[in-house]
Amino acid sequence: MADSETNSASHSYSAPGTDLHLELRGPGLRVGLTNALREAVRTGRLTPGTRLPPSRSLAADLGVSRHTVTDAYAELVAEGWFTAQQGSGTRVAERMEPRRATAAAPRTKPAPRRPRYEMRVGAPNLASFPRTQWLTASRRALTAAPHDAFGYGDALGRVELRTALADYLARARGVHAEPDRIVICSGFHHGLTLMAQVLKTRQVRAVAVEAYGLDLYRDLLTRADLRTPPVHVDEHGARTEDLKHMPEIGAVLLTPAHQHPTGGALRPDRRAAAVDWARAADGLILEDDYDGEFRYDRQPVGALQGLDPDRVVYFGSVSKSLAPGVRLGWMVLPEELVPQIAAAKGHGDYMSSALEQLTLAEFITSGAYDRHVRSMRLRYRRRRDQLVTALAQRAPHVRVAGIAAGLQAVVELPHGTERSVVQAATRQGLEVSGLAEFRHEATDPERQLPEQDALVVNYAAPSDSAWAGALDTLCRVMP
Amino acid sequence: MADSETNSASHSYSAPGTDLHLELRGPGLRVGLTNALREAVRTGRLTPGTRLPPSRSLAADLGVSRHTVTDAYAELVAEGWFTAQQGSGTRVAERMEPRRATAAAPRTKPAPRRPRYEMRVGAPNLASFPRTQWLTASRRALTAAPHDAFGYGDALGRVELRTALADYLARARGVHAEPDRIVICSGFHHGLTLMAQVLKTRQVRAVAVEAYGLDLYRDLLTRADLRTPPVHVDEHGARTEDLKHMPEIGAVLLTPAHQHPTGGALRPDRRAAAVDWARAADGLILEDDYDGEFRYDRQPVGALQGLDPDRVVYFGSVSKSLAPGVRLGWMVLPEELVPQIAAAKGHGDYMSSALEQLTLAEFITSGAYDRHVRSMRLRYRRRRDQLVTALAQRAPHVRVAGIAAGLQAVVELPHGTERSVVQAATRQGLEVSGLAEFRHEATDPERQLPEQDALVVNYAAPSDSAWAGALDTLCRVMP
Repeated sequence: MADSETNSASHSYSAPGTDLHLELRGPGLRVGLTNALREAVRTGRLTPGTRLPPSRSLAADLGVSRHTVTDAYAELVAEGWFTAQQGSGTRVAERMEPRRATAAAPRTKPAPRRPRYEMRVGAPNLASFPRTQWLTASRRALTAAPHDAFGYGDALGRVELRTALADYLARARGVHAEPDRIVICSGFHHGLTLMAQVLKTRQVRAVAVEAYGLDLYRDLLTRADLRTPPVHVDEHGARTEDLKHMPEIGAVLLTPAHQHPTGGALRPDRRAAAVDWARAADGLILEDDYDGEFRYDRQPVGALQGLDPDRVVYFGSVSKSLAPGVRLGWMVLPEELVPQIAAAKGHGDYMSSALEQLTLAEFITSGAYDRHVRSMRLRYRRRRDQLVTALAQRAPHVRVAGIAAGLQAVVELPHGTERSVVQAATRQGLEVSGLAEFRHEATDPERQLPEQDALVVNYAAPSDSAWAGALDTLCRVMP
Repeated sequence: MADSETNSASHSYSAPGTDLHLELRGPGLRVGLTNALREAVRTGRLTPGTRLPPSRSLAADLGVSRHTVTDAYAELVAEGWFTAQQGSGTRVAERMEPRRATAAAPRTKPAPRRPRYEMRVGAPNLASFPRTQWLTASRRALTAAPHDAFGYGDALGRVELRTALADYLARARGVHAEPDRIVICSGFHHGLTLMAQVLKTRQVRAVAVEAYGLDLYRDLLTRADLRTPPVHVDEHGARTEDLKHMPEIGAVLLTPAHQHPTGGALRPDRRAAAVDWARAADGLILEDDYDGEFRYDRQPVGALQGLDPDRVVYFGSVSKSLAPGVRLGWMVLPEELVPQIAAAKGHGDYMSSALEQLTLAEFITSGAYDRHVRSMRLRYRRRRDQLVTALAQRAPHVRVAGIAAGLQAVVELPHGTERSVVQAATRQGLEVSGLAEFRHEATDPERQLPEQDALVVNYAAPSDSAWAGALDTLCRVMP
């Protein structure tokens, strides 16, 4: 085209007869004129049926070539905005009603006041994302990738990542993993969504869940038409010995390494009881290993999955170890489930970026992942120690429960104080979770849960600069 | 721990009494011993109930400190592999049955012979992925990203990308887009999956589809319990004037810019008819703009969505313009659908990588996306010209149908030859799609489709080095 590709200045023109104010924008005059005419119709300045000025006169008026105008008219005829009939010129199409003026109500709600300190359960320390190392891995991965890595990919995920994970998970988490049994997903939530679909096709009606946990996951199962009877939880994790008395369940969802959020590690006899149940009942154990890498008092306990890889589905992700924004997780599956999960995933095309998968594979195999986890383990451990020390000094009547692990601690409060403490914290600009929000509403009165007032404090999330203030505020709102 | 962090050599040891061959691997002796013991149980070399050698004697035998052995034992007790009773020492837990020897059947099927030339419909030219420019965008995006970009994100997608797309789509495709009406997804397949869920909640029972199209999408709708009556297709796209005679439908799926795969552009009066139908029937138009940027004979025709943004859902992605492996696409929605689609997406946590979203936003705003599309447009156009010229010379009785656009061309064949041509191509190592595989099986005999023998030739996919051979092979198998 003859028009300048770089003309992006704005001008106003008036077309005689139609009082057509056109503001020409865009990379060229033709495109600019086309856009301006389209906008004039859209906003109602050119009404349906209106006859457009002859191309020759509009061109003269705008100081552009007639060619530019006829091209713009033809474009809008092709798009359906205008109609052109031999002899009657070009008109605005009859059906082009102007768009309503934008609704009166403001579109964006006033932004909620952002808390000064965010210690609710969820994110790790986002400021620690290893940007430089990630970019290095990204550059290496992208440089080395075969061309077909840029194609559609398959539902299991990139083999490079599954291979790296098989090695890493065996080494770091005692998982019995083979690349062929790993399926990449975007995180635990996504993996559980796929799993719920597969459980339904296997005629499972109910999945036992820990009596304390994220309502997000209970809701997900409920939406998939699965009931979620609770299993009691104490300081040694879920009471898996009760599973054999729950004939209705076909699976159980557990957090063995570090019960979420109450903080216990599943005791060896309960690990055994879970596996015994699964074998006797032909059931599945869903192991959510959300923060298994972060243990501060000893080596992390290996995954339950290692005890019986044919009965346990192991879920992990980078959401706590690296960052949720990467949206990469994995499931290690009993062999027979692999095609079922892959089909569920493929049907919705819930694939992850191949480039991101290759980057994570490189990040793991280069050792950067281990180094990052080790470094974060030290930092989180120090924060947990500081939290325990500060509370011991300034609020000696509260107790930090649970093992020394993960990103959060349970701070047990005097009976009846939880709600007021959470509210006081909010008033001070500190967002923190109360234990009550994780409690499963037991439907069976005999399975009523003991009530414990507590906070669940995410000591990992605050940035370094916010940490001292967050900790001080927390101590100040203690009863 | 005292053990070397870097010892990864393998050694074999024998423990007296239990004939315990342990191969120590891993980053430290303790970890290596733990893994070796776990593996011995797993493979059945240590059977349930077996008493382990006393830590002192195993330590002496292995030449490691006793501490290393007691730690490994304690670890495996904690994981449930071993039991420890006061006085009776450490034993292999009773429930630890050895894993079955891996199934006899080989896991990996013999790899199918890879075609020498891949011209089936689907991928763009993967060898042209702009790795360097993508990395540049990635570096800039990652450097500039706020910390919260590494968090869980929201269901709409990153605002940076939605803003960049709103501008780009208005400019390049005539889409009436505002960032608040855009939802990021992983591609058209994903977007349509979400849309099908929302249509179901709106009590839609049937979605009209073009009589030629990808069975993938028909199957997706069918799985969502939606019927898919066909709309006839000719050289001017779908016969949308028929929609008003289909009272059962609540939506129609169209490819207006370039009918997939028959290659027509939707004629202006049919664009108008589609919008008229949607308004009269309170229906939705689903516009799959899969290759709208690639038009070679004129400026691309703007999106149908611009005609009525309240009735048209616009779908686009980088799968043809950049690469499917990026797994990023977008929906531009009527305002009222935004929360419904966002909820459907959020429920399954089908989020895309925040880093990849930020990279694409930077790639677009920096102008790299426009440059890449322009450069690919020239290359694809040249290939299409070469295809047309070669066929005209060497197979003058076939006809290239459809507009000069996109990544593929329809090559019309003499009646009754399609199947044998596809088979001949396969024998020559050339994979190419026959038109028959895109034909909707009309259930209504009155809506029976005219049969046309044709190939759908993806001239974009072959690498530069393969192109001449692919074109030559194609010409050779022509009837």
